[in-house]
Amino acid sequence: MTPTARTIHHIAREQRHLAWDNSIEPVLRIASGETVTIDAVEASGGQLGPDSTIDDMARLDFAACDPVQGPIYVQDAQPGDTLQIEMLDLEMADWGWTAIIPGFGLLADEFAEPALKIWKLQDGFAEFVPGIRLPLEPFCGEIGVAPAETGAFSTIPPGPNGGNIDTKHLTKGATIYLPVLAPGALFSIGDGHAAQGDGEVCGTAIETPMRITLRLTVRKDLHVPELQYCTAGPLTPRTNIAPYYATTGHGPDLMEAARNAVRNMIEYLERTYGLSRANAYMLCSVAADLKINEIVDAPNWIVGAYMPTSIFTGMGRS
Amino acid sequence: MTPTARTIHHIAREQRHLAWDNSIEPVLRIASGETVTIDAVEASGGQLGPDSTIDDMARLDFAACDPVQGPIYVQDAQPGDTLQIEMLDLEMADWGWTAIIPGFGLLADEFAEPALKIWKLQDGFAEFVPGIRLPLEPFCGEIGVAPAETGAFSTIPPGPNGGNIDTKHLTKGATIYLPVLAPGALFSIGDGHAAQGDGEVCGTAIETPMRITLRLTVRKDLHVPELQYCTAGPLTPRTNIAPYYATTGHGPDLMEAARNAVRNMIEYLERTYGLSRANAYMLCSVAADLKINEIVDAPNWIVGAYMPTSIFTGMGRS
Repeated sequence: MTPTARTIHHIAREQRHLAWDNSIEPVLRIASGETVTIDAVEASGGQLGPDSTIDDMARLDFAACDPVQGPIYVQDAQPGDTLQIEMLDLEMADWGWTAIIPGFGLLADEFAEPALKIWKLQDGFAEFVPGIRLPLEPFCGEIGVAPAETGAFSTIPPGPNGGNIDTKHLTKGATIYLPVLAPGALFSIGDGHAAQGDGEVCGTAIETPMRITLRLTVRKDLHVPELQYCTAGPLTPRTNIAPYYATTGHGPDLMEAARNAVRNMIEYLERTYGLSRANAYMLCSVAADLKINEIVDAPNWIVGAYMPTSIFTGMGRS
Repeated sequence: MTPTARTIHHIAREQRHLAWDNSIEPVLRIASGETVTIDAVEASGGQLGPDSTIDDMARLDFAACDPVQGPIYVQDAQPGDTLQIEMLDLEMADWGWTAIIPGFGLLADEFAEPALKIWKLQDGFAEFVPGIRLPLEPFCGEIGVAPAETGAFSTIPPGPNGGNIDTKHLTKGATIYLPVLAPGALFSIGDGHAAQGDGEVCGTAIETPMRITLRLTVRKDLHVPELQYCTAGPLTPRTNIAPYYATTGHGPDLMEAARNAVRNMIEYLERTYGLSRANAYMLCSVAADLKINEIVDAPNWIVGAYMPTSIFTGMGRS
């Protein structure tokens, strides 16, 4: 077989798996430099749909969440190489969901009740409530290769193989580098997100089915210790068009500082925009970005939560 | 005295102090809504200048660093109120410095030797080495009020009173909110930075003398638990004009993940641009932004270090 770089392969949404495991049989074998289109189910693996209600949340099987489509065996990829992934296209469905899943998320101890928001994705935007509208900047939460170690590893935590990296800046046009850890790399992808804040604080983004087109290339000349990437262009170009309101948390522990920054943002959103506490938490997850502003002025660090004011299209700020 | 909002006061660079202490006598008393221009010495308090060399670093007295100009007593400001600080203007000097100070910084254990870079600040830019040029986006590292507690507290760590917040997004036009903790607020400011990455990872930014003009207003109608702010507009508009190269660190500890992200960026800069390890570390401090990409996929979080490629004006990337 001597495929050209123009060869286009396809993976269907049914060709998926629920663990990172280097013994899973590839669903596709390609040469380095080839292009693949992948239809990816959203993070619930089909348990939720555009008509789902909060009752469906109660039945959600978390163990069936975050499936990935693949794996793809890339010829000549060997441990020590780098797999280059070019995100050529990302096509969202016309709906998505965001949820508070009990026991999951940065403030899981404070949000015991489930919540569900079904979104309509239209013309590049999604309305949260009247007067709050998010521009969509789609990417995939799960991007990974098979681990070096034998065995089945959950797709929930990210690792040296990438996986559930939930990194919002990997939009169309980004070039991603992952270390090859097993022969053939065994690349898989999924968990489409239409929009997300850095941190994904409630645990979910705007989760949506996604059609992904990407090119996989083995780089023998490059070594990366873990995930690296070059973004498509300036960061969040559709959101970073107006001031941001920022809340902060400070202290000797970055995790607690992040929790305080988000708590303070939730309180700000409740007070300023009249959102319920659950809605404020979900809005942080899909729109607010966590930054480490300083990490050197011992013993106290500062984490900021940044909410783009550009999403508030029809509500006054006090 | 019935000053108008147009009254302009002045504080000289000599009117400074080296501790947050609510017993320090104010150098100025103003009414709420008044404007003040402050000449601030840079972070070394005059120990370094445009002609300093690495030998001057050996003599640097760290205990004399990070002085703040003030304090300003704002009439009617009482504990429980909020002090609103509008950054009306920030005027840099024509020089700045960045240093690796032994024992200080995110990777202090790996950088035992001091280093010093003296910058020329001109036409809104500063050259690091030929082919690397940073746009200047000036702000102040130290912005604070006196603490509630009696006693003298170091100006190095930030706290509930603000202080050494080293937050790069507080540029001209930002509106900052701090809780009033002592009668009169006792506001002080200093530590001019011409440019800095989120994190300030080596411990110093482009440190520069700064002339600051700001308006202080007591907000009885507002309560903030700690620092909050609204930025002047879109974030880093002069830097976010091209792709970013990002390195990451993942794991169950955000601090170690941040350290790994920066280590990986240093290695990338050495390999790609031929920078020395010390120069790569300093460039991260003045230009790379730390973001928490995900903080929910237990047990592993991801921190990214983002280097704007827009600063590389004349060097090829491999």
